[in-house]
Amino acid sequence: MDKLEDLKERLQGFADARDWDQFHSPKNLSMALSVEVSELVECFQWLTEEQSKCLTPQQRQAVIDEMADVQVYLLRLATKLDVNLLEAVEQKMQINAAKYPADLVRGSAKKYTDYKQNADQKCDQVSDKKA
Amino acid sequence: MDKLEDLKERLQGFADARDWDQFHSPKNLSMALSVEVSELVECFQWLTEEQSKCLTPQQRQAVIDEMADVQVYLLRLATKLDVNLLEAVEQKMQINAAKYPADLVRGSAKKYTDYKQNADQKCDQVSDKKA
Amino acid sequence: MDKLEDLKERLQGFADARDWDQFHSPKNLSMALSVEVSELVECFQWLTEEQSKCLTPQQRQAVIDEMADVQVYLLRLATKLDVNLLEAVEQKMQINAAKYPADLVRGSAKKYTDYKQNADQKCDQVSDKKA
Amino acid sequence: MDKLEDLKERLQGFADARDWDQFHSPKNLSMALSVEVSELVECFQWLTEEQSKCLTPQQRQAVIDEMADVQVYLLRLATKLDVNLLEAVEQKMQINAAKYPADLVRGSAKKYTDYKQNADQKCDQVSDKKA
Repeated sequence: MDKLEDLKERLQGFADARDWDQFHSPKNLSMALSVEVSELVECFQWLTEEQSKCLTPQQRQAVIDEMADVQVYLLRLATKLDVNLLEAVEQKMQINAAKYPADLVRGSAKKYTDYKQNADQKCDQVSDKKA
Repeated sequence: MDKLEDLKERLQGFADARDWDQFHSPKNLSMALSVEVSELVECFQWLTEEQSKCLTPQQRQAVIDEMADVQVYLLRLATKLDVNLLEAVEQKMQINAAKYPADLVRGSAKKYTDYKQNADQKCDQVSDKKA
Repeated sequence: MDKLEDLKERLQGFADARDWDQFHSPKNLSMALSVEVSELVECFQWLTEEQSKCLTPQQRQAVIDEMADVQVYLLRLATKLDVNLLEAVEQKMQINAAKYPADLVRGSAKKYTDYKQNADQKCDQVSDKKA
Repeated sequence: MDKLEDLKERLQGFADARDWDQFHSPKNLSMALSVEVSELVECFQWLTEEQSKCLTPQQRQAVIDEMADVQVYLLRLATKLDVNLLEAVEQKMQINAAKYPADLVRGSAKKYTDYKQNADQKCDQVSDKKA
Protein backbone atom coordinates (compact mmCIF):
# COMPACT_ATOMS: atom_id res chain seq x y z
CA MET A 1 0.00 0.00 0.00
CA ASP A 2 1.11 3.51 -0.66
CA LYS A 3 2.75 5.07 2.40
CA LEU A 4 0.36 8.03 2.57
CA GLU A 5 -2.65 5.73 2.32
CA ASP A 6 -1.16 3.62 5.11
CA LEU A 7 -0.71 6.72 7.24
CA LYS A 8 -4.30 7.73 6.61
CA GLU A 9 -5.54 4.39 7.91
CA ARG A 10 -3.37 4.51 11.00
CA LEU A 11 -4.41 8.09 11.77
CA GLN A 12 -8.05 7.07 11.42
CA GLY A 13 -7.43 4.22 13.83
CA PHE A 14 -5.74 6.64 16.22
CA ALA A 15 -8.74 8.99 16.13
CA ASP A 16 -11.25 6.14 16.43
CA ALA A 17 -9.50 4.66 19.46
CA ARG A 18 -9.87 8.01 21.23
CA ASP A 19 -13.40 8.94 20.08
CA TRP A 20 -11.92 11.99 18.38
CA ASP A 21 -13.54 11.32 15.03
CA GLN A 22 -16.69 13.16 16.11
CA PHE A 23 -14.76 16.46 16.05
CA HIS A 24 -13.27 15.87 12.60
CA SER A 25 -15.75 17.39 10.18
CA PRO A 26 -14.03 18.77 7.06
CA LYS A 27 -14.93 22.28 8.23
CA ASN A 28 -13.28 21.75 11.63
CA LEU A 29 -10.26 20.02 10.09
CA SER A 30 -9.70 22.97 7.75
CA MET A 31 -9.64 25.21 10.83
CA ALA A 32 -7.22 22.91 12.65
CA LEU A 33 -5.02 22.80 9.55
CA SER A 34 -4.90 26.59 9.46
CA VAL A 35 -4.01 26.72 13.15
CA GLU A 36 -1.13 24.28 12.65
CA VAL A 37 0.17 26.21 9.65
CA SER A 38 0.14 29.37 11.74
CA GLU A 39 2.24 27.64 14.37
CA LEU A 40 4.71 27.03 11.56
CA VAL A 41 4.46 30.65 10.43
CA GLU A 42 5.09 31.68 14.04
CA CYS A 43 8.48 29.97 13.90
CA PHE A 44 9.47 32.23 10.99
CA GLN A 45 7.66 35.50 11.68
CA TRP A 46 10.53 37.47 13.21
CA LEU A 47 13.32 35.80 11.25
CA THR A 48 14.83 37.35 8.15
CA GLU A 49 14.61 35.26 4.99
CA GLU A 50 18.30 34.43 5.41
CA GLN A 51 17.81 33.37 9.02
CA SER A 52 14.95 31.15 7.92
CA LYS A 53 17.43 29.25 5.76
CA CYS A 54 19.88 28.69 8.65
CA LEU A 55 17.84 27.39 11.56
CA THR A 56 19.41 26.31 14.83
CA PRO A 57 18.94 22.61 15.66
CA GLN A 58 16.21 23.54 18.14
CA GLN A 59 14.42 25.81 15.67
CA ARG A 60 14.72 23.13 13.03
CA GLN A 61 13.20 20.44 15.25
CA ALA A 62 10.35 22.73 16.17
CA VAL A 63 9.68 23.48 12.50
CA ILE A 64 9.72 19.77 11.67
CA ASP A 65 7.22 19.08 14.44
CA GLU A 66 4.87 21.71 13.06
CA MET A 67 5.27 20.44 9.51
CA ALA A 68 4.32 16.99 10.77
CA ASP A 69 1.17 18.44 12.35
CA VAL A 70 0.26 20.12 9.06
CA GLN A 71 0.76 16.87 7.15
CA VAL A 72 -1.28 14.96 9.73
CA TYR A 73 -4.30 17.26 9.46
CA LEU A 74 -4.05 17.35 5.67
CA LEU A 75 -4.12 13.54 5.70
CA ARG A 76 -7.08 13.56 8.09
CA LEU A 77 -8.97 15.86 5.73
CA ALA A 78 -8.02 13.63 2.80
CA THR A 79 -9.45 10.67 4.70
CA LYS A 80 -12.73 12.35 5.56
CA LEU A 81 -13.23 13.55 1.97
CA ASP A 82 -11.82 10.37 0.39
CA VAL A 83 -9.13 12.24 -1.52
CA ASN A 84 -5.89 10.76 -2.84
CA LEU A 85 -3.38 13.53 -2.17
CA LEU A 86 -0.71 12.18 -4.52
CA GLU A 87 -3.15 12.02 -7.42
CA ALA A 88 -4.36 15.53 -6.60
CA VAL A 89 -0.79 16.83 -6.69
CA GLU A 90 -0.08 15.02 -9.97
CA GLN A 91 -3.13 16.63 -11.57
CA LYS A 92 -2.15 20.04 -10.27
CA MET A 93 1.39 19.65 -11.61
CA GLN A 94 0.11 18.75 -15.06
CA ILE A 95 -2.17 21.77 -15.09
CA ASN A 96 0.63 24.06 -13.95
CA ALA A 97 3.11 22.64 -16.46
CA ALA A 98 0.72 23.32 -19.32
CA LYS A 99 -0.18 26.74 -18.02
CA TYR A 100 3.33 28.00 -17.34
CA PRO A 101 5.70 26.90 -20.08
CA ALA A 102 9.20 27.27 -18.65
CA ASP A 103 10.46 29.10 -21.73
CA LEU A 104 7.88 31.84 -21.39
CA VAL A 105 7.88 32.10 -17.62
CA ARG A 106 11.60 32.11 -16.85
CA GLY A 107 12.88 35.28 -15.26
CA SER A 108 9.50 36.87 -15.10
CA ALA A 109 8.18 37.64 -11.66
CA LYS A 110 4.97 38.70 -13.38
CA LYS A 111 4.38 35.14 -14.45
CA TYR A 112 5.06 33.95 -10.93
CA THR A 113 2.39 36.15 -9.51
CA ASP A 114 0.11 35.07 -12.33
CA TYR A 115 0.67 31.54 -11.09
CA LYS A 116 -0.61 32.56 -7.67
CA GLN A 117 -3.40 34.58 -9.17
CA ASN A 118 -4.58 31.61 -11.09
CA ALA A 119 -4.79 29.52 -7.95
CA ASP A 120 -6.93 32.23 -6.42
CA GLN A 121 -9.27 32.36 -9.35
CA LYS A 122 -9.88 28.68 -8.85
CA CYS A 123 -10.75 29.58 -5.31
CA ASP A 124 -13.13 32.28 -6.49
CA GLN A 125 -14.91 29.73 -8.61
CA VAL A 126 -15.48 27.68 -5.48
CA SER A 127 -17.21 30.50 -3.72
CA ASP A 128 -19.18 31.23 -6.81
CA LYS A 129 -20.28 27.69 -7.37
CA LYS A 130 -20.91 27.05 -3.71
CA ALA A 131 -24.08 29.02 -3.55
CA MET B 1 12.23 6.10 -4.62
CA ASP B 2 9.52 7.10 -2.23
CA LYS B 3 6.70 8.92 -4.00
CA LEU B 4 6.90 12.05 -1.87
CA GLU B 5 10.67 12.28 -2.41
CA ASP B 6 10.06 11.90 -6.13
CA LEU B 7 7.50 14.70 -6.03
CA LYS B 8 9.93 16.93 -4.16
CA GLU B 9 12.54 16.47 -6.90
CA ARG B 10 10.06 17.18 -9.67
CA LEU B 11 8.72 20.26 -7.92
CA GLN B 12 12.29 21.51 -7.47
CA GLY B 13 12.89 20.99 -11.18
CA PHE B 14 9.68 22.85 -11.94
CA ALA B 15 10.77 25.84 -9.84
CA ASP B 16 14.32 25.78 -11.22
CA ALA B 17 13.10 25.76 -14.82
CA ARG B 18 11.13 28.93 -14.12
CA ASP B 19 13.68 30.78 -11.92
CA TRP B 20 11.15 30.66 -9.10
CA ASP B 21 13.54 29.18 -6.56
CA GLN B 22 14.78 32.65 -5.61
CA PHE B 23 11.39 33.41 -4.03
CA HIS B 24 11.27 30.18 -2.04
CA SER B 25 12.92 31.00 1.29
CA PRO B 26 11.43 28.96 4.16
CA LYS B 27 9.94 32.18 5.54
CA ASN B 28 8.19 32.97 2.26
CA LEU B 29 7.06 29.37 1.75
CA SER B 30 5.47 29.36 5.21
CA MET B 31 3.49 32.44 4.15
CA ALA B 32 2.47 30.85 0.85
CA LEU B 33 1.43 27.70 2.70
CA SER B 34 -0.77 29.75 5.02
CA VAL B 35 -2.36 31.51 2.05
CA GLU B 36 -3.18 28.21 0.36
CA VAL B 37 -4.66 26.79 3.56
CA SER B 38 -6.86 29.86 3.84
CA GLU B 39 -8.13 29.27 0.33
CA LEU B 40 -9.15 25.85 1.61
CA VAL B 41 -10.76 27.40 4.70
CA GLU B 42 -12.60 29.79 2.40
CA CYS B 43 -14.33 26.82 0.75
CA PHE B 44 -15.78 25.81 4.13
CA GLN B 45 -16.30 29.11 5.94
CA TRP B 46 -20.02 29.57 5.34
CA LEU B 47 -20.91 25.87 5.24
CA THR B 48 -22.30 24.04 8.25
CA GLU B 49 -20.28 21.09 9.50
CA GLU B 50 -22.86 18.79 7.90
CA GLN B 51 -22.65 20.61 4.57
CA SER B 52 -18.86 20.29 4.70
CA LYS B 53 -19.33 16.51 4.71
CA CYS B 54 -21.58 16.54 1.63
CA LEU B 55 -19.86 18.69 -0.97
CA THR B 56 -21.21 19.13 -4.47
CA PRO B 57 -18.93 17.79 -7.23
CA GLN B 58 -17.81 21.34 -8.00
CA GLN B 59 -17.11 22.16 -4.36
CA ARG B 60 -15.28 18.86 -3.99
CA GLN B 61 -13.04 19.50 -6.98
CA ALA B 62 -12.23 22.98 -5.72
CA VAL B 63 -11.35 21.60 -2.29
CA ILE B 64 -9.13 18.94 -3.87
CA ASP B 65 -7.32 21.63 -5.89
CA GLU B 66 -6.62 23.64 -2.75
CA MET B 67 -5.48 20.54 -0.86
CA ALA B 68 -3.04 19.87 -3.70
CA ASP B 69 -1.67 23.40 -3.37
CA VAL B 70 -1.18 22.91 0.36
CA GLN B 71 0.64 19.62 -0.21
CA VAL B 72 2.81 21.22 -2.91
CA TYR B 73 3.98 24.08 -0.69
CA LEU B 74 4.54 21.71 2.24
CA LEU B 75 6.73 19.59 -0.03
CA ARG B 76 8.59 22.69 -1.25
CA LEU B 77 9.30 23.65 2.36
CA ALA B 78 10.43 20.11 3.10
CA THR B 79 12.82 20.34 0.16
CA LYS B 80 14.32 23.66 1.19
CA LEU B 81 14.81 22.47 4.79
CA ASP B 82 15.80 18.91 3.81
CA VAL B 83 13.01 17.34 5.84
CA ASN B 84 11.52 13.88 5.28
CA LEU B 85 7.81 14.46 5.87
CA LEU B 86 6.94 10.78 6.31
CA GLU B 87 9.60 10.33 8.98
CA ALA B 88 8.43 13.51 10.71
CA VAL B 89 4.86 12.20 10.79
CA GLU B 90 6.00 8.81 12.10
CA GLN B 91 7.88 10.48 14.95
CA LYS B 92 4.91 12.65 15.78
CA MET B 93 2.59 9.64 15.82
CA GLN B 94 4.86 7.78 18.23
CA ILE B 95 4.99 10.77 20.53
CA ASN B 96 1.23 11.20 20.42
CA ALA B 97 0.56 7.49 20.98
CA ALA B 98 2.70 7.51 24.12
CA LYS B 99 1.22 10.74 25.35
CA TYR B 100 -2.44 9.92 24.81
CA PRO B 101 -3.14 6.32 25.79
CA ALA B 102 -6.43 5.42 24.14
CA ASP B 103 -7.83 3.91 27.36
CA LEU B 104 -7.39 7.13 29.26
CA VAL B 105 -8.31 9.54 26.51
CA ARG B 106 -11.45 7.93 25.13
CA GLY B 107 -14.59 9.97 25.48
CA SER B 108 -12.79 12.88 27.05
CA ALA B 109 -12.87 16.13 25.15
CA LYS B 110 -10.54 17.49 27.81
CA LYS B 111 -7.87 15.12 26.62
CA TYR B 112 -8.48 16.18 23.07
CA THR B 113 -7.86 19.79 23.86
CA ASP B 114 -4.79 18.74 25.84
CA TYR B 115 -3.59 17.15 22.64
CA LYS B 116 -3.86 20.49 20.86
CA GLN B 117 -2.40 22.31 23.83
CA ASN B 118 0.62 20.10 23.73
CA ALA B 119 1.28 20.95 20.10
CA ASP B 120 1.14 24.61 21.03
CA GLN B 121 3.60 24.23 23.85
CA LYS B 122 6.02 22.77 21.36
CA CYS B 123 5.46 25.90 19.37
CA ASP B 124 6.10 28.08 22.40
CA GLN B 125 9.43 26.40 22.86
CA VAL B 126 10.35 27.44 19.35
CA SER B 127 9.73 31.08 20.04
CA ASP B 128 11.57 30.78 23.28
CA LYS B 129 14.61 29.07 21.85
CA LYS B 130 14.67 31.26 18.79
CA ALA B 131 16.11 34.25 20.57
CA MET C 1 -7.64 62.89 18.65
CA ASP C 2 -9.43 59.87 17.35
CA LYS C 3 -9.15 56.93 19.74
CA LEU C 4 -7.60 54.59 17.18
CA GLU C 5 -5.02 57.20 16.21
CA ASP C 6 -4.22 57.67 19.89
CA LEU C 7 -3.79 53.91 20.30
CA LYS C 8 -1.46 53.83 17.30
CA GLU C 9 0.79 56.44 18.87
CA ARG C 10 0.89 54.68 22.21
CA LEU C 11 1.63 51.32 20.60
CA GLN C 12 4.45 52.94 18.63
CA GLY C 13 5.84 54.35 21.86
CA PHE C 14 5.56 50.92 23.46
CA ALA C 15 7.52 49.31 20.62
CA ASP C 16 10.10 52.10 20.55
CA ALA C 17 10.75 51.86 24.27
CA ARG C 18 11.58 48.17 23.83
CA ASP C 19 13.56 48.37 20.57
CA TRP C 20 10.90 46.14 18.97
CA ASP C 21 10.29 48.43 16.03
CA GLN C 22 13.15 46.81 14.11
CA PHE C 23 11.08 43.61 13.80
CA HIS C 24 7.96 45.37 12.59
CA SER C 25 8.23 45.43 8.81
CA PRO C 26 4.82 45.26 7.11
CA LYS C 27 5.72 41.76 5.87
CA ASN C 28 6.50 40.55 9.40
CA LEU C 29 3.47 42.28 10.89
CA SER C 30 1.21 40.57 8.35
CA MET C 31 2.62 37.23 9.54
CA ALA C 32 2.15 38.16 13.21
CA LEU C 33 -1.40 39.25 12.44
CA SER C 34 -2.14 35.88 10.82
CA VAL C 35 -0.68 34.06 13.83
CA GLU C 36 -2.88 36.02 16.24
CA VAL C 37 -5.96 35.38 14.14
CA SER C 38 -5.19 31.67 14.21
CA GLU C 39 -5.03 31.78 17.98
CA LEU C 40 -8.55 33.15 17.79
CA VAL C 41 -9.57 30.43 15.33
CA GLU C 42 -8.09 27.88 17.71
CA CYS C 43 -10.59 28.95 20.37
CA PHE C 44 -13.44 28.02 18.02
CA GLN C 45 -12.09 25.10 16.00
CA TRP C 46 -13.74 22.24 17.89
CA LEU C 47 -16.85 24.15 18.94
CA THR C 48 -20.11 23.89 17.06
CA GLU C 49 -21.51 27.12 15.67
CA GLU C 50 -24.06 27.11 18.49
CA GLN C 51 -21.37 26.60 21.14
CA SER C 52 -19.41 29.48 19.63
CA LYS C 53 -22.38 31.72 20.43
CA CYS C 54 -22.52 30.63 24.09
CA LEU C 55 -18.98 30.83 25.43
CA THR C 56 -18.12 30.15 29.05
CA PRO C 57 -16.69 33.17 30.92
CA GLN C 58 -13.20 31.69 30.59
CA GLN C 59 -13.61 31.01 26.87
CA ARG C 60 -15.01 34.48 26.40
CA GLN C 61 -12.10 36.16 28.16
CA ALA C 62 -9.62 34.15 26.11
CA VAL C 63 -11.39 35.15 22.90
CA ILE C 64 -11.37 38.81 23.94
CA ASP C 65 -7.63 38.61 24.64
CA GLU C 66 -6.98 37.21 21.17
CA MET C 67 -9.24 39.81 19.54
CA ALA C 68 -7.20 42.50 21.31
CA ASP C 69 -3.99 41.00 19.89
CA VAL C 70 -5.48 41.05 16.39
CA GLN C 71 -6.53 44.69 16.79
CA VAL C 72 -3.09 45.60 18.13
CA TYR C 73 -1.21 44.12 15.17
CA LEU C 74 -3.68 45.62 12.71
CA LEU C 75 -3.04 49.02 14.31
CA ARG C 76 0.74 48.43 14.18
CA LEU C 77 0.48 47.66 10.46
CA ALA C 78 -1.68 50.75 9.98
CA THR C 79 1.03 52.81 11.69
CA LYS C 80 3.88 51.43 9.61
CA LEU C 81 1.95 51.98 6.35
CA ASP C 82 0.38 55.27 7.47
CA VAL C 83 -3.17 54.02 6.97
CA ASN C 84 -6.28 55.41 8.63
CA LEU C 85 -8.29 52.28 9.39
CA LEU C 86 -11.59 54.07 9.95
CA GLU C 87 -11.35 55.83 6.60
CA ALA C 88 -10.45 52.54 4.93
CA VAL C 89 -13.51 50.86 6.43
CA GLU C 90 -15.75 53.78 5.40
CA GLN C 91 -14.53 53.49 1.81
CA LYS C 92 -15.06 49.74 1.80
CA MET C 93 -18.58 50.11 3.17
CA GLN C 94 -19.49 52.60 0.44
CA ILE C 95 -18.14 50.26 -2.22
CA ASN C 96 -20.03 47.31 -0.76
CA ALA C 97 -23.27 49.26 -0.39
CA ALA C 98 -23.18 50.24 -4.06
CA LYS C 99 -22.22 46.77 -5.17
CA TYR C 100 -24.76 44.82 -3.15
CA PRO C 101 -28.10 46.61 -3.14
CA ALA C 102 -30.06 45.14 -0.26
CA ASP C 103 -33.18 44.63 -2.37
CA LEU C 104 -31.36 42.43 -4.84
CA VAL C 105 -29.15 40.60 -2.39
CA ARG C 106 -31.63 39.70 0.33
CA GLY C 107 -32.17 36.01 0.82
CA SER C 108 -29.64 35.05 -1.77
CA ALA C 109 -26.64 33.09 -0.55
CA LYS C 110 -25.29 33.38 -4.06
CA LYS C 111 -24.96 37.09 -3.60
CA TYR C 112 -23.22 36.54 -0.30
CA THR C 113 -20.57 34.40 -1.89
CA ASP C 114 -20.29 36.93 -4.66
CA TYR C 115 -19.50 39.44 -1.98
CA LYS C 116 -16.60 37.29 -0.83
CA GLN C 117 -15.57 36.55 -4.38
CA ASN C 118 -15.34 40.21 -5.10
CA ALA C 119 -12.95 40.74 -2.20
CA ASP C 120 -10.77 37.98 -3.60
CA GLN C 121 -10.68 39.48 -7.02
CA LYS C 122 -9.33 42.64 -5.48
CA CYS C 123 -6.66 40.50 -3.95
CA ASP C 124 -5.87 38.94 -7.31
CA GLN C 125 -5.30 42.35 -8.73
CA VAL C 126 -2.70 42.93 -6.05
CA SER C 127 -0.71 39.92 -7.06
CA ASP C 128 -1.07 40.88 -10.65
CA LYS C 129 0.02 44.44 -10.20
CA LYS C 130 2.79 43.55 -7.80
CA ALA C 131 5.12 42.20 -10.45
CA MET D 1 -20.98 57.57 20.17
CA ASP D 2 -17.54 56.06 19.75
CA LYS D 3 -16.64 55.64 16.09
CA LEU D 4 -16.00 51.89 16.33
CA GLU D 5 -19.34 51.37 18.10
CA ASP D 6 -21.02 53.38 15.37
CA LEU D 7 -19.34 51.22 12.72
CA LYS D 8 -20.50 48.08 14.49
CA GLU D 9 -24.11 49.26 14.35
CA ARG D 10 -23.91 50.18 10.70
CA LEU D 11 -22.27 46.89 9.78
CA GLN D 12 -25.01 45.05 11.67
CA GLY D 13 -27.60 47.01 9.71
CA PHE D 14 -25.79 46.15 6.50
CA ALA D 15 -25.86 42.44 7.32
CA ASP D 16 -29.48 42.54 8.49
CA ALA D 17 -30.63 44.28 5.31
CA ARG D 18 -29.16 41.44 3.27
CA ASP D 19 -30.13 38.49 5.51
CA TRP D 20 -26.45 37.74 5.97
CA ASP D 21 -26.60 37.64 9.75
CA GLN D 22 -27.55 33.96 9.65
CA PHE D 23 -24.05 33.10 8.41
CA HIS D 24 -22.28 35.15 11.07
CA SER D 25 -21.73 32.76 13.97
CA PRO D 26 -18.54 33.56 15.91
CA LYS D 27 -17.03 30.33 14.58
CA ASN D 28 -17.72 31.30 10.97
CA LEU D 29 -16.58 34.88 11.50
CA SER D 30 -13.27 33.67 12.90
CA MET D 31 -12.80 31.66 9.71
CA ALA D 32 -13.71 34.64 7.52
CA LEU D 33 -11.32 36.81 9.52
CA SER D 34 -8.50 34.34 8.91
CA VAL D 35 -9.30 34.26 5.19
CA GLU D 36 -9.16 38.06 4.96
CA VAL D 37 -5.87 38.18 6.87
CA SER D 38 -4.41 35.66 4.44
CA GLU D 39 -5.42 37.88 1.55
CA LEU D 40 -3.33 40.53 3.28
CA VAL D 41 -0.45 38.08 3.76
CA GLU D 42 -0.72 37.21 0.09
CA CYS D 43 0.11 40.82 -0.80
CA PHE D 44 3.41 40.48 1.07
CA GLN D 45 4.40 36.84 0.59
CA TRP D 46 6.94 37.26 -2.23
CA LEU D 47 8.13 40.74 -1.25
CA THR D 48 11.29 41.29 0.76
CA GLU D 49 10.88 43.09 4.07
CA GLU D 50 12.30 46.22 2.42
CA GLN D 51 9.89 45.98 -0.49
CA SER D 52 7.03 45.63 1.98
CA LYS D 53 7.97 49.07 3.32
CA CYS D 54 7.91 50.71 -0.14
CA LEU D 55 4.68 49.64 -1.79
CA THR D 56 3.60 50.95 -5.16
CA PRO D 57 0.38 52.99 -5.12
CA GLN D 58 -1.51 49.98 -6.50
CA GLN D 59 -0.02 47.58 -3.97
CA ARG D 60 -0.76 50.08 -1.21
CA GLN D 61 -4.41 50.45 -2.19
CA ALA D 62 -4.82 46.69 -2.34
CA VAL D 63 -3.27 46.32 1.12
CA ILE D 64 -5.56 49.03 2.51
CA ASP D 65 -8.59 47.23 1.04
CA GLU D 66 -7.59 44.00 2.74
CA MET D 67 -6.89 45.77 6.04
CA ALA D 68 -10.40 47.22 5.84
CA ASP D 69 -11.82 43.72 5.36
CA VAL D 70 -9.92 42.49 8.41
CA GLN D 71 -11.22 45.39 10.50
CA VAL D 72 -14.77 44.78 9.27
CA TYR D 73 -14.79 41.11 10.27
CA LEU D 74 -13.14 41.88 13.60
CA LEU D 75 -15.91 44.42 14.25
CA ARG D 76 -18.56 41.89 13.20
CA LEU D 77 -17.12 39.37 15.68
CA ALA D 78 -17.04 42.08 18.36
CA THR D 79 -20.73 42.75 17.69
CA LYS D 80 -21.79 39.12 17.86
CA LEU D 81 -19.86 38.57 21.12
CA ASP D 82 -20.70 42.01 22.55
CA VAL D 83 -17.05 42.97 22.95
CA ASN D 84 -15.69 46.52 23.16
CA LEU D 85 -12.50 46.31 21.13
CA LEU D 86 -11.00 49.53 22.47
CA GLU D 87 -11.44 48.39 26.07
CA ALA D 88 -9.97 44.99 25.19
CA VAL D 89 -6.89 46.66 23.69
CA GLU D 90 -6.52 48.96 26.70
CA GLN D 91 -6.58 45.98 29.05
CA LYS D 92 -4.04 44.12 26.92
CA MET D 93 -1.73 47.14 26.85
CA GLN D 94 -1.81 47.44 30.63
CA ILE D 95 -1.01 43.76 31.00
CA ASN D 96 1.84 43.99 28.51
CA ALA D 97 3.26 47.16 30.09
CA ALA D 98 3.43 45.48 33.48
CA LYS D 99 4.84 42.28 32.04
CA TYR D 100 7.53 43.81 29.87
CA PRO D 101 9.18 46.71 31.66
CA ALA D 102 10.97 48.71 28.97
CA ASP D 103 14.20 48.89 30.99
CA LEU D 104 14.50 45.14 31.18
CA VAL D 105 13.24 44.30 27.71
CA ARG D 106 15.16 46.81 25.59
CA GLY D 107 17.53 45.32 23.10
CA SER D 108 16.60 41.79 23.98
CA ALA D 109 15.04 39.73 21.25
CA LYS D 110 14.59 37.03 23.86
CA LYS D 111 12.11 39.20 25.66
CA TYR D 112 10.33 39.89 22.43
CA THR D 113 9.78 36.23 21.76
CA ASP D 114 8.73 35.81 25.36
CA TYR D 115 6.07 38.36 24.60
CA LYS D 116 4.75 36.19 21.82
CA GLN D 117 5.13 33.07 23.90
CA ASN D 118 3.04 34.61 26.61
CA ALA D 119 0.24 35.32 24.19
CA ASP D 120 0.33 31.68 23.15
CA GLN D 121 0.16 30.43 26.69
CA LYS D 122 -3.00 32.44 27.08
CA CYS D 123 -4.25 30.62 24.07
CA ASP D 124 -3.25 27.27 25.57
CA GLN D 125 -5.31 28.05 28.61
CA VAL D 126 -8.29 28.53 26.36
CA SER D 127 -7.98 25.09 24.87
CA ASP D 128 -7.45 23.67 28.31
CA LYS D 129 -10.40 25.37 29.87
CA LYS D 130 -12.63 24.79 26.90
CA ALA D 131 -13.24 21.16 27.68
